[in-house]
Amino acid sequence: MFKPPRGTRDFLPEEMIKRNRVLDTVRRIFESYGYDPLGTPAFESWEMLKIKSGEDIIDQIYYFKDKSDRELGLRFEMTASMARVVASKRALQLPFKRYAIGPCWRYERPEPGRFREFYQADVDVVGSFDSLSDAEVIAVAADCLRALDFNGFQIRLNDRRILEGIMEVVGILGEKSLEVFRALDKLDKVGREEVLKALGALGIPKEKSEKLLELISLKGSPEIVLDEVRRLLPNSQDFQKVCDNLSKIVEYAELFGYSQCLTIDLSLARGLDYYTGPVFEVSLGERVGSVAGGGRYDRLIELYGGRPTPATGISLGIERIMTLLEQRGFFEPVNTVTQVFVASISSTRKEAVGIAIRLREAGLCVDMDLMERSLTNQLEYVDKKGINIAVIVGEKELREGCVALRDMKEKRQVNVKLEDLVDKIKEQMRPREEITKPLS
Amino acid sequence: MFKPPRGTRDFLPEEMIKRNRVLDTVRRIFESYGYDPLGTPAFESWEMLKIKSGEDIIDQIYYFKDKSDRELGLRFEMTASMARVVASKRALQLPFKRYAIGPCWRYERPEPGRFREFYQADVDVVGSFDSLSDAEVIAVAADCLRALDFNGFQIRLNDRRILEGIMEVVGILGEKSLEVFRALDKLDKVGREEVLKALGALGIPKEKSEKLLELISLKGSPEIVLDEVRRLLPNSQDFQKVCDNLSKIVEYAELFGYSQCLTIDLSLARGLDYYTGPVFEVSLGERVGSVAGGGRYDRLIELYGGRPTPATGISLGIERIMTLLEQRGFFEPVNTVTQVFVASISSTRKEAVGIAIRLREAGLCVDMDLMERSLTNQLEYVDKKGINIAVIVGEKELREGCVALRDMKEKRQVNVKLEDLVDKIKEQMRPREEITKPLS
Repeated sequence: MFKPPRGTRDFLPEEMIKRNRVLDTVRRIFESYGYDPLGTPAFESWEMLKIKSGEDIIDQIYYFKDKSDRELGLRFEMTASMARVVASKRALQLPFKRYAIGPCWRYERPEPGRFREFYQADVDVVGSFDSLSDAEVIAVAADCLRALDFNGFQIRLNDRRILEGIMEVVGILGEKSLEVFRALDKLDKVGREEVLKALGALGIPKEKSEKLLELISLKGSPEIVLDEVRRLLPNSQDFQKVCDNLSKIVEYAELFGYSQCLTIDLSLARGLDYYTGPVFEVSLGERVGSVAGGGRYDRLIELYGGRPTPATGISLGIERIMTLLEQRGFFEPVNTVTQVFVASISSTRKEAVGIAIRLREAGLCVDMDLMERSLTNQLEYVDKKGINIAVIVGEKELREGCVALRDMKEKRQVNVKLEDLVDKIKEQMRPREEITKPLS
Repeated sequence: MFKPPRGTRDFLPEEMIKRNRVLDTVRRIFESYGYDPLGTPAFESWEMLKIKSGEDIIDQIYYFKDKSDRELGLRFEMTASMARVVASKRALQLPFKRYAIGPCWRYERPEPGRFREFYQADVDVVGSFDSLSDAEVIAVAADCLRALDFNGFQIRLNDRRILEGIMEVVGILGEKSLEVFRALDKLDKVGREEVLKALGALGIPKEKSEKLLELISLKGSPEIVLDEVRRLLPNSQDFQKVCDNLSKIVEYAELFGYSQCLTIDLSLARGLDYYTGPVFEVSLGERVGSVAGGGRYDRLIELYGGRPTPATGISLGIERIMTLLEQRGFFEPVNTVTQVFVASISSTRKEAVGIAIRLREAGLCVDMDLMERSLTNQLEYVDKKGINIAVIVGEKELREGCVALRDMKEKRQVNVKLEDLVDKIKEQMRPREEITKPLS
């Protein structure tokens, strides 16, 4: 028996319907903020993928050659592809606000909640230095989580330039900053001792590392932390500007309504090499890992041959969100998109086809018997599938212009005139059966 | 400057919005018939892919190894993955009606309308021998095309067993049938002479090939063709059953409302090896190629280790459909999902954020200035982006609890009370701005 390749999964309808619901919600929120869809291929040239993969990730890319010996790789995220497009389309109106929702692939050790094929959902604003864009992409992520009934999530905010300032204060060389960021990024996961070890391995003396960890553990309301940071950092205009900038994001957070969830966390570094300013991460309490993360990357577009163009963005980790939604019992069990089943006997089958057509035209999702089964077997199937409404097309009723409308849960049925059928079904439908909500 | 890999494409928002509209429509129709979504990975084990690829396709699969030397390949279609799932899930309720909409990959020579990364949209019914299921999957495809404003498409129907019967009559050995099917499948593309050559290469004498081509060129209404076929074929119960079966599909076509588009075309063979009975193809007039195709494959599930299980299905070629829709001017040009832009000056910016939030809560797609541009520059951007409605938040108006509502097309603006803003905007919206239509 064949299985899906290790680290990948099949999604049966009961899982896929839930995934679609989450992806539809995310897309609706993305579009409500005026982000437009951009599509890019599942694979890219190896040369392009290498540019921003960094050492950690390059080993995780699925690499292959096509029949003309072109070197290719499956995308491991979608920002590089977006940067490639922006770099090559010089006529693009800025700011360019784009979203992308799709699968990415990394050859990692599969763990609970971590897969080799996984979905990401990204929004990015390209072309704006303004901190309102940073605040907005965070707001988009927060709105997605709220739309999925998550409450009590935490948004952590920092700026890599503050970390660099603190390194300067402590006396750690700026040229080590990327490696220091990578070590700090693992603080939550591996703990203080391991990070000290990693910093030691970079040749940083223990007392400096300890001082660094002490300074970045500063806690408190955003205003208090920012005040402390202003005092702490070298008194240069640049650093004051970085702090002003963070304080603006904090102000906008108030307007967007997520300021109660926002903290400034000076230990937040984010793993990717290309962030140049604010970085942010959204998580649901301690030890759950992040569900969204991002930051500003003002030099990435140039790396792909474009004009210098500022950019900021955030990415939602759909797999982790799905896991958490399942744990929280967010989903009611649903096996099928079908709302109504039209049951018939052989002599009424043709009429049943006609009735199904009319119900579909009225916007309902309608299945009918395709097996020439007995009525009993049809209703058993309806029950097992979890379809809530059956329309039974009997000979006698049909002669009177009627069908039986059966509520499968309540096990009740009534005869209904054909011309009233659509209305009666809609009355009987439970709200949760409205699977796809309209945008407006 | 980097480009997408050869044969693949980027889709800028103006293209992606159209694609999403088509994919959303297809999904809505699929679900209206009670087909449920099934998700499978983008790549599968090489061993599994080989089973049904056939000689033509195996060379077109993107092949690679993962870091543990597992042999993998990108999926070149989605039926094999579905068969793998059905074979391994023995508890699945039958009939299993599933849809899948997603990208597939083939290393083919790129041509206008043919790409190495392309989308397919499939519906399949697994578990039913009943010809109502064949008729239904064709109806689903026809409904998708109608929902996309296509009219005058042609549905060609045949049964491979009839072709085998005609081969028997002509005196061509049954063991050659797969090769004969493959040769016949190219009749439309390469013409009669080339097919005669291909049949000759199979060792079939010219007079037999010519007789075969003559018999399968039989034209007329489905009833007339079926009558001829009944006379023509060896008088066995099996062949009569095949004809009865086709006649049932023709009857159901009447009920589903696509019988005027349906012809029986005895030359239709379809290229894939695994079809076992009825085959069908939907095209838009001569020389355009097909937009959908499928057939019955009652032995495929077994090939993947499952119980013997009948199945039938159809696949829509999204790329060809997109090309034809473009040619027909189906799409009005749209650059963005944004319906409303909230313009502001620096002193009203915070209020603008609040107004944008309220409009989004009312279900609108709303963008605002993220660049601290002047009002003039903001409105120029709105114009270039093709956003139809601007809300201008001025100081003076705001003091009176108002904003200016501007119709960008008509170049007219009126002051509107904040509490009436949502209603006034909805009045002003053109119907086509309702980008996503609800399911019900």
